[in-house]
Amino acid sequence: MNGPVRLDAGDPGFDAAFTQLVNARREADSDVARDVRAIVASVRDEGDAAVAAFTKKFDGHDLNESGWRIEPGECQAALDGLASDLRAALELAAARIAAYHEKQKPADSDFTDDAGIRLGARWRGVDAAGVYVPGGRAAYPSSVLMNAIPAKVAGVERLVMVTPTPKGEANPLVLAAAALAGVDEVWRIGGAQAIAALAYGTGRIAAVDVVTGPGNAWVAEAKRQLYGVVGIDMVAGPSEIVVIADGRNDPRWIAADLLSQAEHDPTSQSILFTDDLAFADAVAAAVEDELASLATADTARASWQANGAIFTVPVLEDAIALCDRLAPEHLELAVDDPQTLFDGVRHAGSVFLGRHTPEAVGDYVAGPNHVLPTGRRARFASGLSVLDFMKRTSFLALDKAGLAAVGPAAVTLADAEGLPAHARSVAVRLGQG
Amino acid sequence: MNGPVRLDAGDPGFDAAFTQLVNARREADSDVARDVRAIVASVRDEGDAAVAAFTKKFDGHDLNESGWRIEPGECQAALDGLASDLRAALELAAARIAAYHEKQKPADSDFTDDAGIRLGARWRGVDAAGVYVPGGRAAYPSSVLMNAIPAKVAGVERLVMVTPTPKGEANPLVLAAAALAGVDEVWRIGGAQAIAALAYGTGRIAAVDVVTGPGNAWVAEAKRQLYGVVGIDMVAGPSEIVVIADGRNDPRWIAADLLSQAEHDPTSQSILFTDDLAFADAVAAAVEDELASLATADTARASWQANGAIFTVPVLEDAIALCDRLAPEHLELAVDDPQTLFDGVRHAGSVFLGRHTPEAVGDYVAGPNHVLPTGRRARFASGLSVLDFMKRTSFLALDKAGLAAVGPAAVTLADAEGLPAHARSVAVRLGQG
Repeated sequence: MNGPVRLDAGDPGFDAAFTQLVNARREADSDVARDVRAIVASVRDEGDAAVAAFTKKFDGHDLNESGWRIEPGECQAALDGLASDLRAALELAAARIAAYHEKQKPADSDFTDDAGIRLGARWRGVDAAGVYVPGGRAAYPSSVLMNAIPAKVAGVERLVMVTPTPKGEANPLVLAAAALAGVDEVWRIGGAQAIAALAYGTGRIAAVDVVTGPGNAWVAEAKRQLYGVVGIDMVAGPSEIVVIADGRNDPRWIAADLLSQAEHDPTSQSILFTDDLAFADAVAAAVEDELASLATADTARASWQANGAIFTVPVLEDAIALCDRLAPEHLELAVDDPQTLFDGVRHAGSVFLGRHTPEAVGDYVAGPNHVLPTGRRARFASGLSVLDFMKRTSFLALDKAGLAAVGPAAVTLADAEGLPAHARSVAVRLGQG
Repeated sequence: MNGPVRLDAGDPGFDAAFTQLVNARREADSDVARDVRAIVASVRDEGDAAVAAFTKKFDGHDLNESGWRIEPGECQAALDGLASDLRAALELAAARIAAYHEKQKPADSDFTDDAGIRLGARWRGVDAAGVYVPGGRAAYPSSVLMNAIPAKVAGVERLVMVTPTPKGEANPLVLAAAALAGVDEVWRIGGAQAIAALAYGTGRIAAVDVVTGPGNAWVAEAKRQLYGVVGIDMVAGPSEIVVIADGRNDPRWIAADLLSQAEHDPTSQSILFTDDLAFADAVAAAVEDELASLATADTARASWQANGAIFTVPVLEDAIALCDRLAPEHLELAVDDPQTLFDGVRHAGSVFLGRHTPEAVGDYVAGPNHVLPTGRRARFASGLSVLDFMKRTSFLALDKAGLAAVGPAAVTLADAEGLPAHARSVAVRLGQG
């Protein structure tokens, strides 16, 4: 354990060290890809039998004995059995997530232009979507809500959840969240075999159109390989946070924020930028203090030691430029005037403004999605949204006059491209056939 | 050559034959994937040297002699050298494409809810995008416009084009379109090696954030494999059209439409649904007539014989349900009241309404994008748009009162998920630390 990186922007080795951090890969390698190709091919070719065999092998139970599905009644019973504060918290989260995502629904367009040509685009929800929910360490009801609610807001009619149940045991919180979010089917399967089953369909499980949800390296790789057979959300890597904070924060608050990311997994990454050297020291000390009593200290310490970093910069504006190179999943701006810094941010999945907006409040109840691009993908990718469960059909209607206005140009271009049947399909309608 | 499929919905074998058609794959297989993996790894590890070696091997010229780049002046000269009708047609197309795509620009959101919590989302263009333009058979200036203009409308600052120049020869029409569309850099490279160069960057070529554009099976597979390293548009397969037409159309018009798709490639697919048996016969005959004089008859005939189909149905509404199973790239509704049929369509990339809207007019000058989901992907995917070159950053700002309103629920959920540092990052701010 080397401990977190600790550098000042004025250090001679800073540029090289920061570039190394930007380019570091914390993700799975090609062995996983090979294994996943074999699993996917097997499920495609052998369907249920392959799914059952992999489940027996990886999850340790026989689907034909433990049952393939978890019935809706079991999910509802899990919801009904929740402690009242927990149920109220889940309901608040679900309501706020639904409200935020309702505003993402795209408007159709339908207009007639100066040439008398009608043009437009129509959005519709996909017919069926599948949500992957991990078992074990990362069995999070909040993930169920964050994936399922946007699908329902999008108008998805058949919403399927798959979740591994190691040795047959399901997580009641996950089932309760599924009931609350309106999931239509729950299957007791996981891993790459579950993704393949959703993409290709099997005898028992009808194929879906879009698959989303977090998972381990096998799940992520299966989604990547099946992209195009189905739609997927962005491939997810280890979680990460960048905190940009001045010296007027409580070091304990910022330490807690850094650890809230570090406790996810040893591959997670937490980075602090500050313009105050004494504050940097205080946060480093507060992290150690917190770790002394944190129940998840083993994971959080491993992440902080391996991937954590504290950078000091002359002014916080410098941190924004460096942060853009990282394009982090989460960015906290813990200053009095976060908007000015935020105006300069180009690349981040989600930004948390001000001293009273810890990233964790966004993980659960604030409303925006917590499924966000990782591994510098915020350069080009966005958080999960209603759009991931919808598709757009463009349309076009010309009458004779409209075709007369633009058709000749189409004929000219088609001829120039060496596509005479294209040209002819327009020309015959212009009376040139 | 078996000729196009010809079936009536009442035929005993109809369901089986139609299902076979729906499930038929006309796409590349895993040999391509293996080759592409090797090329991608080589470009990632060896950069320019690998790109030059593959270009020498596949395109037959030495980049260090023929030149890696095509300079902006050469593109402008190609534009200036166009015949005036061709230049006018390209300019009309560019203006209409820009106008349509301007309307796709998403609105930012920024609002404060009842709990006093500020929420929103901010859209920005990606920094850099790469557009692939095929050489040889499919070197289409219209593709340049359809890929480059949405990127520019999105606000992309650095727009890169890659295009193979077999034996060093570039297509002047493609260069002219690049100049018109505002492409910033043009590189004389193609194939999987070009996609890998754009995704990873090389010594000479800076990496981009998004790669779009059509290509052969190697190009499509490279994009699929590099999805996640960069953003990509949907993986594209062979082109396809479904025409739904009543008996009151000119059979020659509909035949021309079917052939306009068939002439793209032997793997293209053209399908007619009609409720009029005599009209079906007339179209089949008209296709043969057209083929007798069509310059692209070899390709078009191969496609029509291998993948074409004419289906007769009792009423055209039945064709809509069958068409949804195909989720075609292009759908023409050649009837007097296309809107009624269109209202029932769930899955199609782009729809062409009425008798005077041949699909080809949309390929060139109408305005909507001609890069559309193929191979049943319209179930979940959309045509290329400004959104493909943008990304969304969500944001959140709570003050002390806002955190007091929703923070306790976040603490409850974090505790239930076994994430105590998440809970603590909220609790310390609630004075519970």
